Formats: sequence, structure tokens, C-alpha cells
Amino acid sequence: MSYAMQLLDSYPRTFNLEASLLASTIDALNDCAQACTADADDDLSEPDVAEMVKCIRLCLDCADICTTTAAVTSRRTDYDPNVARPLLEACIAACETCAHECELHATMHVHCRVCAEACRRCQRACEDLLTSLR
Amino acid sequence: MSYAMQLLDSYPRTFNLEASLLASTIDALNDCAQACTADADDDLSEPDVAEMVKCIRLCLDCADICTTTAAVTSRRTDYDPNVARPLLEACIAACETCAHECELHATMHVHCRVCAEACRRCQRACEDLLTSLR
Amino acid sequence: MSYAMQLLDSYPRTFNLEASLLASTIDALNDCAQACTADADDDLSEPDVAEMVKCIRLCLDCADICTTTAAVTSRRTDYDPNVARPLLEACIAACETCAHECELHATMHVHCRVCAEACRRCQRACEDLLTSLR
Amino acid sequence: MSYAMQLLDSYPRTFNLEASLLASTIDALNDCAQACTADADDDLSEPDVAEMVKCIRLCLDCADICTTTAAVTSRRTDYDPNVARPLLEACIAACETCAHECELHATMHVHCRVCAEACRRCQRACEDLLTSLR
Repeated sequence: MSYAMQLLDSYPRTFNLEASLLASTIDALNDCAQACTADADDDLSEPDVAEMVKCIRLCLDCADICTTTAAVTSRRTDYDPNVARPLLEACIAACETCAHECELHATMHVHCRVCAEACRRCQRACEDLLTSLR
Repeated sequence: MSYAMQLLDSYPRTFNLEASLLASTIDALNDCAQACTADADDDLSEPDVAEMVKCIRLCLDCADICTTTAAVTSRRTDYDPNVARPLLEACIAACETCAHECELHATMHVHCRVCAEACRRCQRACEDLLTSLR
Repeated sequence: MSYAMQLLDSYPRTFNLEASLLASTIDALNDCAQACTADADDDLSEPDVAEMVKCIRLCLDCADICTTTAAVTSRRTDYDPNVARPLLEACIAACETCAHECELHATMHVHCRVCAEACRRCQRACEDLLTSLR
Repeated sequence: MSYAMQLLDSYPRTFNLEASLLASTIDALNDCAQACTADADDDLSEPDVAEMVKCIRLCLDCADICTTTAAVTSRRTDYDPNVARPLLEACIAACETCAHECELHATMHVHCRVCAEACRRCQRACEDLLTSLR
């Protein structure tokens, strides 16, 4: 069981959301942040780094946004949808944009293929969570 | 001149945005992140900490979101409005929500009054930047 | 296979370190950051929040330090031990201090027991990585 | 007066450290994080980006470490030198290493000169704070 799930399981209050859905979104967000941080670095090591500049930039953005979204959605105390909803929308947009760019390099660079996959998984998880949020 | 402005001044390419507007927004974002991080900690030191739980939580969210928004808006290379616009909207919402909560404690706690001010300033700066973004 | 491992597997250059050791450390760092972020929030929801203030504070520190250490150790390009070594030492100290505090609450709060476990696992992983670093 | 200073001024407890020294260190840390984030992006826009890879990598590290150090040193509640001291040491090392690299490019790129200056200022501020810490 992931730490996200274990900590939701031991949360002292109740919350109006399925714990397993929330935990798998948090896991997808942390995975995507990790994939984007590492992919930006992998791009920096490529001989064609000048071609990878846009990919590096979007990976840095996506890593920052996913890390923040994981932290905000992990907090259940005095949850406020006015903060969570637009942040999830911003995160979906960042994952979509980063995935699209990484997919352009996926046949050339395995790390971009893996990163695109992490972004798409995270995008879908955030979309599912957003649908469930009240 | 702030470091945000000095670094925009020495950016190697051109960008379709007024540098001083962008720099003052980045400064307001970094100020707000600092105010929220410190206010959450000030709240933790109050004898009535149990009354400050919602304020702590929103300050932690707002600090994370402002730090990320400062980083993303600082990056000019291969700028993509599909990432920047929804993130600025999320940041405006976070600043609005956090300012509102801090204002409730402003007469009781000076640190909450100062934090509310930083949040409102940041909110307005992000709104102005969003209007200028293409 | 974790995203940390998949991305190390597809890194374009070679690096002077066992990939599985590095990947499991990065995973432990991300797990610990997640556990600490959630535990700080769980503490905020406890009726005895005034007793948990030190725990909240150390969890916030440990989450920030683990997130940064995960990012820095994930970057392999132009790796510099002068940056990585002292950061790992700081991370070990933060995990040690946070685990110690969480252990004091472990019989009372399940979330603190789980968080202490994540901190100890991360501490050991960072110690192992530090031993292997050149 | 900076927000760091305003928030320290309104901190509800006392702390065993000169507020102005602490505030100026926090300001130097936030300035350095901003300079490094922007310099990494400026490097990505340079025609000779392949020569700037090491600089980009060290700026990303230094930005992450300064942001975390600013947050940890901003928290005064239940302050623990076992966490703060090694983190300041890691931050000094990161600023030193990043400044050294940026100085190599300072005559070629104004943004690297400005970033090196921010790193050196931050390094000195952290050294001074470390000397004062008990």
C-alpha cells in the first residue's frame, strides 16, 4: 500500500471522497513530478540538447506543478474546493502540454516516451479526481 | 532593481510582454510565498493554535502555489500560455481564499494582517499579468 | 518498475553508481516527502493539535528537504559531489529528527507511526547512497 | 521592510537570534532562488546552450536548495539546530558551487554574472547565520 494511501487511511476525520481514488491521484502526481524532473535532466545529457529546449522547459514546469498539486490535494483539513479545483485544472493543462511535447520525441528518446506516459496517466487521474470533487 | 528584473533585463531573446509588469508580478509571488510560509509558522506558535488550523492549511497551499507560479512565470523560453494562464488563475484563487481567511484574524494577529496584504497584492499582480498575457 | 528506475534506465550517458541503489533512494525520498506532508495535515486535524505543533513543524521541514534531495539526486548530468554529499547529510539529519519526534506519538496516532517508518526508511536509504557516492 | 522582516517582527514568541540578520538571510535565499531559476532559463535560450548544460544543472539544484532553506529558516516554532545547521551547510556548498560555475560565464553572459552575484551574497548570508546559530 502506498504511503499516500496509508496516510489517508489513518486521517483522523472523515472526508467526502473515495480514499483509493485520491491516493492513486496523489501517487500519479508524485510519479509524474519524478518523471519530469528526470526527463529534463536526461534531455540535458542528449547530444541534441538544442532540439530539446522546449521539452526541458515544459518538464520543469510540469514537475513543479505536479509537486504542488500533490501537496495541496494531500491536505484534507478544512479542504476548500475553491483552491483545489482550479489547481487541478492547471495541472491537467500542464500534463497535457508536457505529454504532447514528450510524445514528439518518443521514438527518438526512450526517456521522453516514459515521461509522456507518466504525464498522460497523471492527466487522467487528475481529470477523474476533478469529476469527483464537490 | 530586484533580481527578477535584472534577470529579465539580461534574457537573451525578446518576449512579448512588458518586463517591469512581469518582474513586479514575480516579486509579488515570491513575497507572498514568504509571507504565507512565515504566517503558517506564526500561527503554530499562537496559544489559540486550534482556532488557526484553517489559516495554517490555506497558507501552506498558497505558499506552494505562489512558489510554483513564480518559477513557471520566470521561464520565458518557449513560453506556452496553455500552461501559464490556468496556473495564474489557480494562483489568483489561492491568494483570494488565503487573504479572506487571514483577514478574519487580522485584528487579533498582526502576522495575519501582513499576510493578507501580501496575498491581496499578489492576487492583483497576477490578475494584471493574466490580462496582459497572450 | 518505478518511474525513478525507468528514467535512470534510459539516461543517455553512463554514471558511476548502481542504478537500483539510486532509484530506491529516490523512491524512499519521494515516499518520505509524501508521508511528512500528509502527517503534518493529519496532525492539524487532531483534537490535541496544540501537542502536535513540534511534529507539524518537523514534518514540514522534512517534506521540503526530501523533495529537494529527490530532485538533486535525480539529476545525473554534470553530477557534483560537493552539492550532493552535504545535501544528503542534511536530509539524513532531517529524517532522523522527524522520525524521533513522530515515534513519540506513534502509539497515540497511527499516522505518526507510519510517518516515522517512512522517515527511518529514507534515512537508511540516504546513508547507503552517501556511502556509495564518490 | 521586507515581508520576511515584517513576519519576524510579528512572531508571537521570542527567538534566540537577531531578527534583522535572519530576515536578511531569508531575503538573500529567496533572491538567490529567483536568480538561479531565471538564469537556468536564460541559459536555455542561449545559442550555445550545449556549453551551458553544467550551469543549468547547478542553477536548478541551487534554486531548489535555496527555496527549501528559506522555508526551513523561516520557521521559528520549535526550532531545531540539528535540522537547520546541516541544511545551511548544504546551502552554502550549493551556492559556492553554482557561483563558481556562473563566474566562468560572467564575461560572456550578463545573466550569469548577476546570478553569480546572488549566489555569493546568499553564501555569505548563510555563513553569517550559521555562525550565529546555537
